[in-house]
Amino acid sequence: GKTWKIAVLPGDGIGVEVIDATLPLLDAVAEQSGLHLVHETFPWPSCAWHRETGQMMPDDALDRLRGYDAMLLGALGDPGPLSDRSRHVLPDGISLAPLLTLRKEFDLWACERPARFYPGARRYLADPRSRDMDMLVIRENSEGEYVNQGGRLHRGTAHETATQVEVFTRVATERLVRHAFESAARRLEERRRGHLPARSFSDDRGGESGAQVCLVTKRNALPHWGELYTEVFNEIGRDYPDIGMHHELVDAACMKFVQSPWQFDVVVASNLQGDILTDLAAVLSGGMGVAPSCNIKPDDRGVPPLFEPTHGSAPDIAGQGRADPRAMFLTAAMMLEWMGVEDEAAQAAGLGIRRAVEKDLSEQHEDRGTAEITAAVLARLQPE
Amino acid sequence: GKTWKIAVLPGDGIGVEVIDATLPLLDAVAEQSGLHLVHETFPWPSCAWHRETGQMMPDDALDRLRGYDAMLLGALGDPGPLSDRSRHVLPDGISLAPLLTLRKEFDLWACERPARFYPGARRYLADPRSRDMDMLVIRENSEGEYVNQGGRLHRGTAHETATQVEVFTRVATERLVRHAFESAARRLEERRRGHLPARSFSDDRGGESGAQVCLVTKRNALPHWGELYTEVFNEIGRDYPDIGMHHELVDAACMKFVQSPWQFDVVVASNLQGDILTDLAAVLSGGMGVAPSCNIKPDDRGVPPLFEPTHGSAPDIAGQGRADPRAMFLTAAMMLEWMGVEDEAAQAAGLGIRRAVEKDLSEQHEDRGTAEITAAVLARLQPE
Ligand SMILES: CC(C)[C@H](C(=O)O)[C@@H](O)C(=O)O
Ligand SMILES: CC(C)[C@H](C(=O)O)[C@@H](O)C(=O)O
Repeated sequence: GKTWKIAVLPGDGIGVEVIDATLPLLDAVAEQSGLHLVHETFPWPSCAWHRETGQMMPDDALDRLRGYDAMLLGALGDPGPLSDRSRHVLPDGISLAPLLTLRKEFDLWACERPARFYPGARRYLADPRSRDMDMLVIRENSEGEYVNQGGRLHRGTAHETATQVEVFTRVATERLVRHAFESAARRLEERRRGHLPARSFSDDRGGESGAQVCLVTKRNALPHWGELYTEVFNEIGRDYPDIGMHHELVDAACMKFVQSPWQFDVVVASNLQGDILTDLAAVLSGGMGVAPSCNIKPDDRGVPPLFEPTHGSAPDIAGQGRADPRAMFLTAAMMLEWMGVEDEAAQAAGLGIRRAVEKDLSEQHEDRGTAEITAAVLARLQPE
Repeated sequence: GKTWKIAVLPGDGIGVEVIDATLPLLDAVAEQSGLHLVHETFPWPSCAWHRETGQMMPDDALDRLRGYDAMLLGALGDPGPLSDRSRHVLPDGISLAPLLTLRKEFDLWACERPARFYPGARRYLADPRSRDMDMLVIRENSEGEYVNQGGRLHRGTAHETATQVEVFTRVATERLVRHAFESAARRLEERRRGHLPARSFSDDRGGESGAQVCLVTKRNALPHWGELYTEVFNEIGRDYPDIGMHHELVDAACMKFVQSPWQFDVVVASNLQGDILTDLAAVLSGGMGVAPSCNIKPDDRGVPPLFEPTHGSAPDIAGQGRADPRAMFLTAAMMLEWMGVEDEAAQAAGLGIRRAVEKDLSEQHEDRGTAEITAAVLARLQPE
């Protein structure tokens, strides 16, 4: 089979620790599955920014990364640990910039975060039906609220005005919405084949469907792109008569995520609203400890997608060996499953990690550190 | 005492039913407390829009409303009931416009939603500590994301672009942030006097405080107004050394609302982000059934504030006598407490309603309709 080349970016804080825990797991599962995988680590923490070159990544960083099949990121942000407050000098706007740069330069226009409840994960919601949640939130990742246009006029004076312009294009909206319907169609197919449990969702056009795309906007208050999204949604939805279509306003969507998360299937939203919805879905499905995510370019598999856990660099616990690496393990599994579209060994490897993490989650454990959790999951990899 | 004049706007759907339930309660509590209160009802449903004049409210609506001390709104939106689908022709952007008009024309620049857990209310969160939540979310209500500026270029073509401009002024930011600190100072005072339980919150400047303002932005991705908000927050915070200061990014704030809502006190946010946070806080504190809200102009008590429950017009259950009127009751209590700053009888009346609703919530009930709940709460008003 193909040899997959992975660029590993540990990043900051606990990112380094969870990556350290993940690499041996990746190697072990690759060996077990007969998967050909090589990885190289690029120690480009965001805290390098102010200490050395004034840049976070070397000049040729993007060119070097372009040669890889996928990127695996630990976490970016405040570098921690608390014991060394002198290093806490980076505002979020700077320390997280490499993430936005990678998304932009590789045109990774979709961010996906599956939110599935794993038995044994922390359950935040009281309603036991929340265990049935299994949604995929797809977020626009290339434009919208995040174009960084605007500025401050009459800065510092009493009549100061700040503007921030949201820009949405039909091209980006169409590819996003089509990708959401394609993802729902794939889920429907998996359910029909019995690989996933059958489900039933409402369709705003009437009736019920075995899969659904829910569009989220705030079109009653932000009409311009809200109408564009709605029109594109209705146009593309016509090509998918088997997929239920539904719309929610973002405020109502957040409430319904809490009230009945099991009623959602595929959810598609803008950059900012998707950021909020993905984080909310992640916590409802068991918290940052189990939330993987990816930034991908679905229409071009030649570009390396970026896989990262949803959690941050957690400066408060960095450097203490206390980070839970399981979200990073599930992120590695997500990467392997993405490779698995072309390579059966990768598919098996991804499933291997996922099963091992599921087993580990479902057991009661004493308070464990990163090393203990890693050892336990590694041991679970062995076929029993 | 003063005679308070209340303009009652039942609105659409269950709005009419919950207002019908609330007026007798208001009359009863006014009589009991010696409060002088008159109310007039303005039946201006949004569904009147397309059926008669092409307008939702008469031309002189604002002038007439200006003569009142406060406005009490049921709900605006889809008029329902489901049995008459021919009336379901209004998109949200139209049916909810009167709400935005009232906010704008009366310059009701702050929207407040307290989120306190009432024993007996539905508990969505598994963690029992969520019962201790008692936060006040203050939302900017006059500008920001909701200025309705922007448009669609090359509409319908492949190169269409939609823009939506967010506009924030220093003036509106300063009054908002100062109001948040004033609200926190009032809560601190109530806690010191023992009227509210003492609390302890972290302060980003170090240490702990008995009250806190948490500023929410997305300044790492939306820097222009994020920096303006941050600067104003830091400037005004200097005047309140006793109040803890804290900042959260909106995505993290949503997660923390779910993970540990009891860690928040006063939360202040922009129009859109505040919309999301208020709805989320409402559901976490027990759902739409107990969530009141108000739109006020804190720097001018001469302008009638608008009190409304957070729930919508609920077309799916409208016209069936099944609406839960208790959020509307708590909204009336909030109005009475606002009047109570000037009038002790109003303060007592507000407390009377709140206590009656609290008692009703804390009891187990069979499935009840609007009439039964109203009768039970009315009976609870009587001093025991
Ligand atoms: C770092 C930040 C700009 C980023 C975002 O909002 O996109 C983060 O919150 C995320 O979700 O990956
Ligand atoms: C009707 C709509 C525009 C409104 C808002 O978002 O402000 C509503 O959701 C609310 O919160 O009162």
